[in-house]
Amino acid sequence: MAKKSKVAVIIGSDSDLDVIKNCTDVLKDFGIPYELRILSAHRVPDELSKYIKAFAKNNIKIVVAAAGGAAHLPGVIASQTSLPVVGVPVETKYLKGIDSLFSIVQMPKGVPVATMAIGEAGARNAAIFAAQVIALEDKKVAKRLSAFKMKQKKAVLEKDKTAGRF
Amino acid sequence: MAKKSKVAVIIGSDSDLDVIKNCTDVLKDFGIPYELRILSAHRVPDELSKYIKAFAKNNIKIVVAAAGGAAHLPGVIASQTSLPVVGVPVETKYLKGIDSLFSIVQMPKGVPVATMAIGEAGARNAAIFAAQVIALEDKKVAKRLSAFKMKQKKAVLEKDKTAGRF
Amino acid sequence: MAKKSKVAVIIGSDSDLDVIKNCTDVLKDFGIPYELRILSAHRVPDELSKYIKAFAKNNIKIVVAAAGGAAHLPGVIASQTSLPVVGVPVETKYLKGIDSLFSIVQMPKGVPVATMAIGEAGARNAAIFAAQVIALEDKKVAKRLSAFKMKQKKAVLEKDKTAGRF
Amino acid sequence: MAKKSKVAVIIGSDSDLDVIKNCTDVLKDFGIPYELRILSAHRVPDELSKYIKAFAKNNIKIVVAAAGGAAHLPGVIASQTSLPVVGVPVETKYLKGIDSLFSIVQMPKGVPVATMAIGEAGARNAAIFAAQVIALEDKKVAKRLSAFKMKQKKAVLEKDKTAGRF
Amino acid sequence: MAKKSKVAVIIGSDSDLDVIKNCTDVLKDFGIPYELRILSAHRVPDELSKYIKAFAKNNIKIVVAAAGGAAHLPGVIASQTSLPVVGVPVETKYLKGIDSLFSIVQMPKGVPVATMAIGEAGARNAAIFAAQVIALEDKKVAKRLSAFKMKQKKAVLEKDKTAGRF
Amino acid sequence: MAKKSKVAVIIGSDSDLDVIKNCTDVLKDFGIPYELRILSAHRVPDELSKYIKAFAKNNIKIVVAAAGGAAHLPGVIASQTSLPVVGVPVETKYLKGIDSLFSIVQMPKGVPVATMAIGEAGARNAAIFAAQVIALEDKKVAKRLSAFKMKQKKAVLEKDKTAGRF
Amino acid sequence: MAKKSKVAVIIGSDSDLDVIKNCTDVLKDFGIPYELRILSAHRVPDELSKYIKAFAKNNIKIVVAAAGGAAHLPGVIASQTSLPVVGVPVETKYLKGIDSLFSIVQMPKGVPVATMAIGEAGARNAAIFAAQVIALEDKKVAKRLSAFKMKQKKAVLEKDKTAGRF
Amino acid sequence: MAKKSKVAVIIGSDSDLDVIKNCTDVLKDFGIPYELRILSAHRVPDELSKYIKAFAKNNIKIVVAAAGGAAHLPGVIASQTSLPVVGVPVETKYLKGIDSLFSIVQMPKGVPVATMAIGEAGARNAAIFAAQVIALEDKKVAKRLSAFKMKQKKAVLEKDKTAGRF
Repeated sequence: MAKKSKVAVIIGSDSDLDVIKNCTDVLKDFGIPYELRILSAHRVPDELSKYIKAFAKNNIKIVVAAAGGAAHLPGVIASQTSLPVVGVPVETKYLKGIDSLFSIVQMPKGVPVATMAIGEAGARNAAIFAAQVIALEDKKVAKRLSAFKMKQKKAVLEKDKTAGRF
Repeated sequence: MAKKSKVAVIIGSDSDLDVIKNCTDVLKDFGIPYELRILSAHRVPDELSKYIKAFAKNNIKIVVAAAGGAAHLPGVIASQTSLPVVGVPVETKYLKGIDSLFSIVQMPKGVPVATMAIGEAGARNAAIFAAQVIALEDKKVAKRLSAFKMKQKKAVLEKDKTAGRF
Repeated sequence: MAKKSKVAVIIGSDSDLDVIKNCTDVLKDFGIPYELRILSAHRVPDELSKYIKAFAKNNIKIVVAAAGGAAHLPGVIASQTSLPVVGVPVETKYLKGIDSLFSIVQMPKGVPVATMAIGEAGARNAAIFAAQVIALEDKKVAKRLSAFKMKQKKAVLEKDKTAGRF
Repeated sequence: MAKKSKVAVIIGSDSDLDVIKNCTDVLKDFGIPYELRILSAHRVPDELSKYIKAFAKNNIKIVVAAAGGAAHLPGVIASQTSLPVVGVPVETKYLKGIDSLFSIVQMPKGVPVATMAIGEAGARNAAIFAAQVIALEDKKVAKRLSAFKMKQKKAVLEKDKTAGRF
Repeated sequence: MAKKSKVAVIIGSDSDLDVIKNCTDVLKDFGIPYELRILSAHRVPDELSKYIKAFAKNNIKIVVAAAGGAAHLPGVIASQTSLPVVGVPVETKYLKGIDSLFSIVQMPKGVPVATMAIGEAGARNAAIFAAQVIALEDKKVAKRLSAFKMKQKKAVLEKDKTAGRF
Repeated sequence: MAKKSKVAVIIGSDSDLDVIKNCTDVLKDFGIPYELRILSAHRVPDELSKYIKAFAKNNIKIVVAAAGGAAHLPGVIASQTSLPVVGVPVETKYLKGIDSLFSIVQMPKGVPVATMAIGEAGARNAAIFAAQVIALEDKKVAKRLSAFKMKQKKAVLEKDKTAGRF
Repeated sequence: MAKKSKVAVIIGSDSDLDVIKNCTDVLKDFGIPYELRILSAHRVPDELSKYIKAFAKNNIKIVVAAAGGAAHLPGVIASQTSLPVVGVPVETKYLKGIDSLFSIVQMPKGVPVATMAIGEAGARNAAIFAAQVIALEDKKVAKRLSAFKMKQKKAVLEKDKTAGRF
Repeated sequence: MAKKSKVAVIIGSDSDLDVIKNCTDVLKDFGIPYELRILSAHRVPDELSKYIKAFAKNNIKIVVAAAGGAAHLPGVIASQTSLPVVGVPVETKYLKGIDSLFSIVQMPKGVPVATMAIGEAGARNAAIFAAQVIALEDKKVAKRLSAFKMKQKKAVLEKDKTAGRF
C-alpha cells in the first residue's frame, strides 16, 4: 500500500503555536497526515537543514511554514527543497505582520513561496491550499474538499436566511 | 496515454501580457502545457465562469492569475474552483502594486490564493511553483526542476568567481 | 402607485453585521426600504449572481456592499450590474482596513465602486449617500436629508456653546 | 421639455486638467451635459461657495471633484450641498496620491464623498458612476450605459481570441 | 493698554476635546488667552467662516485647529485667513492618524498649515509653538518660555540622576 | 531705526539647494531679509550650535530648516532655541520623503517643529508661513501677504474662465 | 590591568526605561559593564554633548541609544563621536514605531547608525550586537556569546521535542 | 606580524554590484582589506554556509551583506556566525526597498543584524560602520576615520561659504 502524502508544518518558535493550530486543525479535518516541527531558521539552521534533507524519506509532499517579523523561515526552506512551500505571515507586535508579509512574499526569481494572508486566516488557508494540491492525486481528499466547500456555502446561506432579522 | 496536466494562465487585460510572459516563458522551458486567456473578472464575469467550469474537461490542474489594483481575478477564480490558484500582483501606476498585493493575498478563511511577489519576479515564480506542484506526480518535470535549480546555482557561482574584479 | 426605490445592502459574512448596522439604521431613519443579504462573493458566488440578476425585479436602485481584507464583494457586484454600487471597507484584524480600502477603491477603468471611509463612519455615510442619490427623484427623502443636515448642524452648534467650559 | 440633468466637474488647479479630461471625455460620450470649473477650495473658497449655492438653479444633479495632496475640494463641496459628490484622488509628486486618497475617502460621519481610484482610472470611473446615477431616471443614458458595458465586454473577448499568439 | 494677543483653538467635534485639552492646558500655563470653539468645517461651514472673519476684531493672532480623518479643518481655516494656522492631526480608529497627518500637512502651494505630531504630543506642542510666535513680541511670554525650557531640562536631569538604579 | 526681522534658512547639504530656492524666492518677493546657511546637524554639529546661539544677535525671528531622510536638522535646531522653527521634509530617493516627514513632524512633547508639505510646495509654504508670523507685527509684510492672496485668487479665477475650452 | 570596555546606554526619557531594560539585562548576563543615562537630544542637548565628549575618558567602546517618534538621539550621538552607535527604535502610540525606525535608520552618508528591530527585540539585540563587537577582542565575552548561542539553540530543540503534542 | 582584520562583503546577485561598490570604495579608502563574494542565501545556501564556516580562518572580523526584497541574506549569515553582521537594504523595483528594510531590520530576539539606510547611503555607511568597529583596536584605521570626519566637515563648511550666492 502506498504511503500517504504528508505535510511538513514548521514554525520557528512556540509563540507561533496558537496561529499554526488553525492550520493543523484543518489538516486533521481533511485526514491529511502532517508533522509539526519547531525549527528556527535563525536559531537552529543546521537542524532545519537536516530535516529538509529528510523530506523525501518522510514522504513530505508540501511544506507549510509560518513566521513573523524578518520572517525568513519559509524562504530558507524553499531555498533547500524543490517541494512547494506555503508561507504564513504571523502578526508582529508593532508592524502588525506587514513586515512578515513582505519578508515572505517578495522572494527573488527562482525561489517561490506561496504566500497566504496574515495570521489565523492565512494559517487556515495554508492547510486548505495544501489539501487542494494533495487532492490533485488523492481522490479522498478531493471529496473532502468538495464537502468542505459545500458546508462552507451552506453556512453562509443559513446566515443569509436570518439576515432579515437584523 | 494519460493526458498531460495543464496550467491555466489568466489575465484580465492585455496590458498585463508583458508581465505574464515571464510566467509562460518558464512554463515553456519546463515543457508544461498551458492555456493563456484574457478574461477580466470585472468586464466578462460570465465568460470567466464558463471557462472555470471547463477546467476539469480541459485537464487544468493549477491556475495562475495575474491582476493589478483592486485585483479580484485570482480570488474570483478561487471562489469557483477547488484547484490550487496562484496569484501574481501586477504593478499599478500609483500604488506600485501594494494595492494589488493586498487585494490578492488577504483572502478570507476558506478560499486561499497562493500569492507571489509583485511583478516579473512573481510571474516567473508562479510558473516555477506550478512546476513544483506538477512535479509531485510528473517525474519529467521533477527532473527539469532539479536541472533548473542546478543551473541557477551554477550561474551564481560563476558570477561569484568574477566578484573579485569589482 | 409607483413602487419605492429600494437599497440592496450586502455583506459577505455575519461578522460584518455590527458595522453594517450603521448603514441600515440610517436607511430606516430616512424611511428608505432596503434588503439586507449575507452573500459572500467568495463562498456563494452563484447565489450572489442570482440575487444581482433580480435587482430590477426587486426595484433595487442602488447597492451598498461592505467587505474586509481582499474585499471583492463590491467590485464583483459592480461587474454584474449597471446600478451604482457603494463600497464600505471593513476593518481587518491586522492591516486595520487599509487592505479592504485598496481592494475596493482601486477598481479598473469601466467598473466604478463609490468607496466610503473605513468602518462605522463609512457604513453610515453609505446610507446617507444612497439617500442623496434617491433624493434626486424622491422629494420626501430630499426633505428628510435637509432635516438631517440641519439637525447635524444644530448638534455641533449646541456643543460649541458649551466649549467654553472646558 | 424638462431640462437635462447636468454634472458639475470641479478641479482646484489647471494642473489637474489632464486627469479630469478622462472624466469629461466619458461624459461627452454618454451625451451628459456638464460644466467644468476651476475653483480651488483653498484659494477661492468664496467663489466656490457661490457656485455650490447655484447648483439647483443650474440643474446640477451630481458633482465630480478631483484634487491632490491635502485634497479638501470634494469634502468642502460635500459640506455645502446635499447632492451626491464623487471624489477623484489625483496623483501627487511624492506620496503618489495616497495622501489624496486618505484626504478624500476618510470623511467623517454625516458628510459622504464617493471616492474613486487614484488618477486617470478614477476620473474615468467618476463619469461612469455619474452616468449610472443619472441613468436611474434617464432611459437614454441607461441605454448608452448598456451599450458601453457590451462594448467593453467585446473588447476583452476580442483580445482573448488573440491571447494564444503570445 | 494694548489688548493681549489671543489664540483661537478650534476643533470640529467634541470627541476631540480630550486631545485638545493638552493644548489649552499649556496655553493656560503660559498665561496666553484663548478661545475654544467647536466648529466643524464639514457640518457648520458657514458658522466657521463667520468666526474666521471675526478674528481681527477678537484680537486673534494665531490659530490652532485639531482634526482627524479627512482632516480639512486646519486647511479650510488657512484658506480664509492670513494668520498663521497650526494643525494637529488627531488619531483615527483605523488608520491611527496617518490619514489625519496627510490631510493636514500636504497643503498646496500658497496655503500653509504648520503641522504638529499626531495626538497629545502634537496638541501640547501646538500651544508651545503658539507661545513661541507670541513671545516674539511679548516679553512676559518669552520669559515663561525660557522658564518652561529650563524646567523641562531639569526634569530630564533629575531623571538621569536616578537612572543608575535601573 | 529698528532692525528688520530676519529669517534663518538652513539646509544640511547643497543637494537641498534646489528645493530651498522655492523658499528663498518667496522671501525675496515679500521683501523679507534672510540668511541661507548650509550647516548639517550630522556633519558640523558644533558650527550649527554656534550659529543657533547667534540668532538673537543676528535679529533672527524665525527659522526654516529643510532636510531629508533621518531629517534631524529642524529638530536639532528646535532643541537649541526658543524661536519658532519651520521644518520642510525633502524628498528622498527611495522612501520619497515619508521618512523625512516622520522624522520632522513626530517631535516629542516640549519641542515643536512646524512641519510643511514634502518638497517644493513645503519649501514655498515655509516662506509664506514665516511671512504670516512676521506680518503679525510688520504691516508692510502684512500688506504684501494680502496682495499675494489676492493675486493667487485672481490667477485661479483667470484659469476658471478658460476652463470651458477644455 | 587593562580597564574593561564599557557600553554607554542612552535614552531620552524615563518612559523608555521598560524597553531598554531588555538591553541592560543582557549586558549584565554577558558581564559587560555599562552606563545607563537619560539624556534627551531635544531637551538637554548640551549635557548630552558633554557626556559624548567624555566617552574616551570613561572607556566607552560602543553606544546603544533608544528613542521613539522623531527619534534623533542615536543620530545626534553618531554626529559627535567616531564610536559605533547602535539605535533602537521605540514604539510610538500612533505610528507604532515606523516613525522611530525611519528616523533612526535613514541616516545620511557619512554618519551611520546600526539600527535594530522596533521595541523589546531590538533592545535585546542591541546588547547582543554590542557583545559581538566587544567579543572581537575580549575572549571571555566571546565564550559567553558561544554559550548563549548554544543555550538559545537548545531551547528551540527542547520546544521542538514537545511540538508533536499540539 | 598580526594579520589585518578583514571585512566579508556579500551580495546575493550581481545586480547588487552597483550599490555595494559604495561600500567597497570606502573600505579601500580606509585601507581595510575585504573579500567581495556573490553568494545567494536562496540559490546557493550550502556554498554560503561553507564560506561562513571559514570566517575565522580567513580572519574575517565583521560582515556586510546587502540584499533586496525578501532580503534574507544578512539574517541567514547572522544565524550562522557570532561575528557582527551589518545589513544593507537594496532598492526594489516596486516597493522601493521598504520590503528589504523590514526583511533585514525586524530580526527576532537573539540574532541581531545592524541595519543601514536603503541603497547607496546605506552601503557607504556600512563601510564606515565597519571601520568604526575595526578602529576600536586598529589605530591606523582610527586615524583615517578622524581624518574622514574632518574632511567631511570641511566639505560642508566650504559649501556653506558659497551659500550666500544662491
